[in-house]
Amino acid sequence: MSERTQLTRMHDRGTDDPEILYRLLDEARVAHVAFIRRDYPVVLPMAFGRDGNRLFLHGSTGAGAFLASRTGLEVSVAVTLVDGLVFARSTFDSTMNYRSAVVFGLATPVPEAHKEKALRAVTEHLMPGRWDEVRTPTAKELAATTVLEVPLSEVSVKMRAAGPGEDPGDSEDRSVWAGVVPLRTVAGVPEPSPLTDSSVPVSDSVRSLL
Amino acid sequence: MSERTQLTRMHDRGTDDPEILYRLLDEARVAHVAFIRRDYPVVLPMAFGRDGNRLFLHGSTGAGAFLASRTGLEVSVAVTLVDGLVFARSTFDSTMNYRSAVVFGLATPVPEAHKEKALRAVTEHLMPGRWDEVRTPTAKELAATTVLEVPLSEVSVKMRAAGPGEDPGDSEDRSVWAGVVPLRTVAGVPEPSPLTDSSVPVSDSVRSLL
Repeated sequence: MSERTQLTRMHDRGTDDPEILYRLLDEARVAHVAFIRRDYPVVLPMAFGRDGNRLFLHGSTGAGAFLASRTGLEVSVAVTLVDGLVFARSTFDSTMNYRSAVVFGLATPVPEAHKEKALRAVTEHLMPGRWDEVRTPTAKELAATTVLEVPLSEVSVKMRAAGPGEDPGDSEDRSVWAGVVPLRTVAGVPEPSPLTDSSVPVSDSVRSLL
Repeated sequence: MSERTQLTRMHDRGTDDPEILYRLLDEARVAHVAFIRRDYPVVLPMAFGRDGNRLFLHGSTGAGAFLASRTGLEVSVAVTLVDGLVFARSTFDSTMNYRSAVVFGLATPVPEAHKEKALRAVTEHLMPGRWDEVRTPTAKELAATTVLEVPLSEVSVKMRAAGPGEDPGDSEDRSVWAGVVPLRTVAGVPEPSPLTDSSVPVSDSVRSLL
């Protein structure tokens, strides 16, 4: 644990379990990447993937100034899932159940030789199984793509997974319902593209999401 | 549109429609707030709410150094919803449908006199209707809470809501399914707290989420 991860950790909610971190990263679909541009902070959503202890970030070229850094750029990356709403008998104690990872480190461009593997990690993270179903990147597409790599070495993981705070001795009104409403993200009915014939079956990678 | 919002906008995906911004803020449950601490970027998830053109941020006291700033702190705040996975016939064209807002501005502490109203906006954003069902904050609780305010004046909104790119003249393999898998967040079965008697009905605010 570095000074930076220490500073951002609530001691009662921190965890050092890498399995919790990896599961969170697997389940979440977007990362929020912060960096300093000139003298102000910028945060952008980006797609991401993971290979072992490395996080890969894949943004649009719209984030050009950011992605162009060849020497590396100090970033902070947050990945958060809201797992539930916690309804207490006071507004003060109402909260969320969540899992959150905040990574600090130097983001560097993945070198050409490793770019395909990094893109595979990003694609397989978002759409497990898809890489082997469709056409993989051409040399031209690879050249047009920037992927950044951040080591998962300086990470603060926080989570809350509990009911509302309540005390048998308190004076809160027990006639009010208190508890947790779990939240989860679900896939809806797949919508075929105009050029997808109705005889073409839904891909396995799509079916596995349903 | 300022230089900052211009820099982070993909021109083909930007929108200036305030209704799209407000709907995104209403639907999302967490904001990612970036700021500069010493000389490095930090991003943290925070609960938020909105009142007109003001965004309220409510973090744990664990983000103490951040929240303690009385004179204001330059922040960038991102709120993102992933609306779907876009399965193209190539990995390169595969993407996500999403809505994203990135706000730039000075975050300042909400003064004592307005704190309750700001907290109400945060609570009602997360749990509409809950404020009037339960005990509202005591003077002591209000004093222990920091809420930050950021004007929604410098905002870049981007979105993608479309099927995969595909071209009738291309050579992609049409035997592969392409299309969109919509994603949405749903509430599960409410889990009563240990002190909630089974005779107590689920609150209206909870029922409205189901």
